[in-house]
Amino acid sequence: MAVRVAVAGASGYAGGELLRLLLTHPEVEIGALTGNSNAGQRLGALQPHLLPLAGRVLEPTAPEVLAGHDVVFLALPHGQSAAVAEQLGPDVLVIDMGADFRLTDAAAWERFYGSPHAGTWPYGLPELPGGRAALEGSKRVAVPGCYPTAVSLALCPAYAAGLAGPEAVIVAASGTSGAGKAPKPHLLGSEVMGSMSPYGVGGVHRHTPEMIQNLGAAAGEPVTVSFTPTLAPMSRGILATCTAAARPGVTAESLRAAYEKAYADEPFVHLLPEGQWPATASVHGSNAVVVQVAHDTAADRIIAISAIDNLTKGTAGGAVQSMNIALGLDETTGLTTIGVAP
Amino acid sequence: MAVRVAVAGASGYAGGELLRLLLTHPEVEIGALTGNSNAGQRLGALQPHLLPLAGRVLEPTAPEVLAGHDVVFLALPHGQSAAVAEQLGPDVLVIDMGADFRLTDAAAWERFYGSPHAGTWPYGLPELPGGRAALEGSKRVAVPGCYPTAVSLALCPAYAAGLAGPEAVIVAASGTSGAGKAPKPHLLGSEVMGSMSPYGVGGVHRHTPEMIQNLGAAAGEPVTVSFTPTLAPMSRGILATCTAAARPGVTAESLRAAYEKAYADEPFVHLLPEGQWPATASVHGSNAVVVQVAHDTAADRIIAISAIDNLTKGTAGGAVQSMNIALGLDETTGLTTIGVAP
Amino acid sequence: MAVRVAVAGASGYAGGELLRLLLTHPEVEIGALTGNSNAGQRLGALQPHLLPLAGRVLEPTAPEVLAGHDVVFLALPHGQSAAVAEQLGPDVLVIDMGADFRLTDAAAWERFYGSPHAGTWPYGLPELPGGRAALEGSKRVAVPGCYPTAVSLALCPAYAAGLAGPEAVIVAASGTSGAGKAPKPHLLGSEVMGSMSPYGVGGVHRHTPEMIQNLGAAAGEPVTVSFTPTLAPMSRGILATCTAAARPGVTAESLRAAYEKAYADEPFVHLLPEGQWPATASVHGSNAVVVQVAHDTAADRIIAISAIDNLTKGTAGGAVQSMNIALGLDETTGLTTIGVAP
Amino acid sequence: MAVRVAVAGASGYAGGELLRLLLTHPEVEIGALTGNSNAGQRLGALQPHLLPLAGRVLEPTAPEVLAGHDVVFLALPHGQSAAVAEQLGPDVLVIDMGADFRLTDAAAWERFYGSPHAGTWPYGLPELPGGRAALEGSKRVAVPGCYPTAVSLALCPAYAAGLAGPEAVIVAASGTSGAGKAPKPHLLGSEVMGSMSPYGVGGVHRHTPEMIQNLGAAAGEPVTVSFTPTLAPMSRGILATCTAAARPGVTAESLRAAYEKAYADEPFVHLLPEGQWPATASVHGSNAVVVQVAHDTAADRIIAISAIDNLTKGTAGGAVQSMNIALGLDETTGLTTIGVAP
Repeated sequence: MAVRVAVAGASGYAGGELLRLLLTHPEVEIGALTGNSNAGQRLGALQPHLLPLAGRVLEPTAPEVLAGHDVVFLALPHGQSAAVAEQLGPDVLVIDMGADFRLTDAAAWERFYGSPHAGTWPYGLPELPGGRAALEGSKRVAVPGCYPTAVSLALCPAYAAGLAGPEAVIVAASGTSGAGKAPKPHLLGSEVMGSMSPYGVGGVHRHTPEMIQNLGAAAGEPVTVSFTPTLAPMSRGILATCTAAARPGVTAESLRAAYEKAYADEPFVHLLPEGQWPATASVHGSNAVVVQVAHDTAADRIIAISAIDNLTKGTAGGAVQSMNIALGLDETTGLTTIGVAP
Repeated sequence: MAVRVAVAGASGYAGGELLRLLLTHPEVEIGALTGNSNAGQRLGALQPHLLPLAGRVLEPTAPEVLAGHDVVFLALPHGQSAAVAEQLGPDVLVIDMGADFRLTDAAAWERFYGSPHAGTWPYGLPELPGGRAALEGSKRVAVPGCYPTAVSLALCPAYAAGLAGPEAVIVAASGTSGAGKAPKPHLLGSEVMGSMSPYGVGGVHRHTPEMIQNLGAAAGEPVTVSFTPTLAPMSRGILATCTAAARPGVTAESLRAAYEKAYADEPFVHLLPEGQWPATASVHGSNAVVVQVAHDTAADRIIAISAIDNLTKGTAGGAVQSMNIALGLDETTGLTTIGVAP
Repeated sequence: MAVRVAVAGASGYAGGELLRLLLTHPEVEIGALTGNSNAGQRLGALQPHLLPLAGRVLEPTAPEVLAGHDVVFLALPHGQSAAVAEQLGPDVLVIDMGADFRLTDAAAWERFYGSPHAGTWPYGLPELPGGRAALEGSKRVAVPGCYPTAVSLALCPAYAAGLAGPEAVIVAASGTSGAGKAPKPHLLGSEVMGSMSPYGVGGVHRHTPEMIQNLGAAAGEPVTVSFTPTLAPMSRGILATCTAAARPGVTAESLRAAYEKAYADEPFVHLLPEGQWPATASVHGSNAVVVQVAHDTAADRIIAISAIDNLTKGTAGGAVQSMNIALGLDETTGLTTIGVAP
Repeated sequence: MAVRVAVAGASGYAGGELLRLLLTHPEVEIGALTGNSNAGQRLGALQPHLLPLAGRVLEPTAPEVLAGHDVVFLALPHGQSAAVAEQLGPDVLVIDMGADFRLTDAAAWERFYGSPHAGTWPYGLPELPGGRAALEGSKRVAVPGCYPTAVSLALCPAYAAGLAGPEAVIVAASGTSGAGKAPKPHLLGSEVMGSMSPYGVGGVHRHTPEMIQNLGAAAGEPVTVSFTPTLAPMSRGILATCTAAARPGVTAESLRAAYEKAYADEPFVHLLPEGQWPATASVHGSNAVVVQVAHDTAADRIIAISAIDNLTKGTAGGAVQSMNIALGLDETTGLTTIGVAP
């Protein structure tokens, strides 16, 4: 019997990507699709790439609309998920694609988001140590941020193996879909095409505490994170360049061994052959994470680089992967490691 | 039992896209993959987005390599398909993604390609009148060109309904993957980003006689085609703007009725709601064709516009669709109308 | 003594491009810069590429601010120019970069713009027959639209020489800056990158009557125009593909002769050598128009293609060129035919 | 009397950009233009954006062709400059836009380039301490690499003021023109559009020793550099994100004061107002360097970010700036801080 799924926030990029994936998920039946400002509009006008759903009409994000589903995905602005989740009952699987329930540190939440902390849900990054167990059978899932997904999967094996020093320096480039669909002047095509620019510099990006949480857990000790996000002239993709001082005795071989061990059985994380480096084009539309790591011997630093699709593995694909685990389905159902390139 | 498929020319863009589709085709087992200059290389180095095939190694394009398959796709440079096809035997389904067997007019072939005409195979555009019947059970298929696919599906309903005058004027924009993977200076990223440019102007593009063939067949009389292709700063997609004089009595209603009738039951061709126009992003990676038509009353012309993905419906998706028909499978197996956007 | 210039609407793309050019114009002193919603802001925040003006602050668009200048450029939304111009007095050179005063046909204005016609000013396309004379000493100039600039310069020589039939079919691709800086969802980088899409299809684009006006004047008889604009994934540039039936007796030689004669002495219009076709990258940031023409003998049509920078020759460069003529300066002062490429 | 200038290597991107600048340099007369594989071709076919030079024909790079000029710019592949320079005589100003004479450390040269060190010429980055003095009256200039230009101007003030620790971590994104015009598969538009990818990871990029040289000189002690370059989907521009540990006592104020002091009188380096960050679009085609710096207090690191146009300030503009100084002209002659945006 099909799993009946509702999507709250179906008009944005996260919601659209989720529907793209759910349309080919063999166990899922797509139920209510909601939006607020867009309620009443045809999905064909809002998400013209989803032709099989073109005739569907968005409903308001209301309890009676979301009722009666096995799974409800929330693709809402920050701060709105808790109120909706409360109305859904404990037996519904609620998967929050926003930030509200990602952080365990309430103080960090309040510092970065400026509002009371809503709580902490099981964290939807199964590739982290203990990650799958936390999700199995859970009725609540907090989907990780896109940058923390890319960064954690690039660096955690080095931290878990005790190879990396506690001060991570990370620069990541993201496609513009990461900034959402609300029209803002600096996101106009005229502005972003042909331009690279940083934003949220100096430790103020809201994904920073989530990286600190994940890397620290892997390291078993506090890790500081210097994180600089940049906006790249492309629609999708994150390339995360992550470095940390090498601990004494680190070699190219010990590094590679740690990553091979960490990812040997992971269906979505692919450690590339030596000498080949990730490109975001390779994972366009796929749930794969491609990773490579090197030891810069002159600077004595570890350089770990990952590429993901920010909307797929970084948001909606990660959400589906967690749904699969929570429901006891095969983790890879409805997901792919095949990118759309060139 | 799985259909065993070989791909000759697996390192290029057409071959890569074909493999992307075949990987999710439930009836297919991917057999030999060949290349000439790239024989011996890992596919992971050549097509890094196809992670499930990353470890496969290209073999030479030789009869003994291609033997023992049910279907052989040829993604070879023009003029090389006939020699390979001859060696494959009459019981193998051979699908030529090149131009060699598309034209019925040998003189047109020789004028545009400058070499002897190899022959004519059943033409793989099932949406044309009589198109499916020609493919059912066939052991040879000529996959249409990407531009003729977009143009024919935009204009044939108008011609078939007797609404359009016999002089078509067409301007199409294509992504750069249509020009292939062989490195040439004018195809460098530095050259194409931020630039639109025409090429093959003045009726010399090799896809012109194929359009003349298709539009003339639909019209039941000769049609002339003024075709100007342009190179757009994007990897994929064709937007074809096709116009012809309106015959006396044409109205917006008669036009729309003709297109609705033509495409009511087509699984891949979607006539958009009135007022919505095609965008190539909507069909990125999908086998869909989105079409819209209007009557410019002041100029008294029909404007029909289509968008396709040149590599999917325009090449490899069209090839798989024809394979499905030739093998008696459901025509949509392994194909989608869901695009990857934004 | 320097010409003192004010710019009303300095925060948008047209105003920004105008300032870019005026900054290197040797006869000009930049005076008041105004905006409405942006009044009070630093230009450095709005136009960060204009470093020499970074500290300037926008003032409101008010008569007392614009008073005391020799030249006032209006880069305002449609319909606002007349009221501002009236307050400026007859001795001030007023150059309207909007549409308000371009059309001679009041009925066409009202049909396309839905408001009363404000009047007709000398038309700032000096390359048209009689174009310069109309501008010399004038105190009012209507700057042409970007598409009409590209299209008129591509086709007028064929019409003026009696070589082209009276039904023009035009498809043009424009960079996104032509759509302005006001944030709208379909202009987001995520939407436009990787996508080509048409808009204003079927004769409804407001630049159509301006093309009809210019081509008809060149032909000496009415010309109908089928015009389809498309949005291309680039910030700047227009590529206009313009076709018309060839009149009996037209040859490649007669066509070329007509264009050579028309543009032999033009400082900004360059007829390319035979076989070379325009690319928008060549004119990025330059005031040049590159043109090529061919005779498609099979379809018996003339294909004339031009490339311009929509913001330079298509808007602000054309405006400066007209200012130079109106003031009796050398027409090329402060302008260049050197593009910024790649 | 005009300075007569020859350009060896006029068909590539560096040579083309140099000609773009020299065309508007009021003191320069453009003499011989040479190429090797392209000798005999019209510049209009190779650099179609340089319309005023379209009719010029490339000559071979030979001593008799380069003779008789006051200045010779070398835009040649690595390793070829020394042989050409030797033939030019000591009174000719020779400006090498390649790497051959940049490094003072012969061992570093041999390690990174694998060939004997040709020597060291005065280094063309006047904004470095003592930089101008080294260039005044010099007859030989080594133009810095594009990445070292961006990185050195971002970080040297922090090092010179003793604020930054000796381990710099740098991630930079470059437009594709930095990789040159020779066609290679990974530089095709189809490959680079929509993709970010790293290269030369792990300390192996040849610009690394040049950064070590510059940062170490500013610091007065050895500095290690972890440098990761990435290829961005744009034609031009470098965004360099440069970080180093903050020395004890560093504050936002002390950092800003150091940068304000360093760049107060620099004509091309602009420290942005607090809170505004560099974007490469702002410097497209300009010789400006826009810089911002922050103190990430949680990670206790300095984050300095610069944007340049890799072809202008990063190559040809820097070369012209050094020429101006060497010849005793005003340093800004023929150069601009106005970018072409959007």
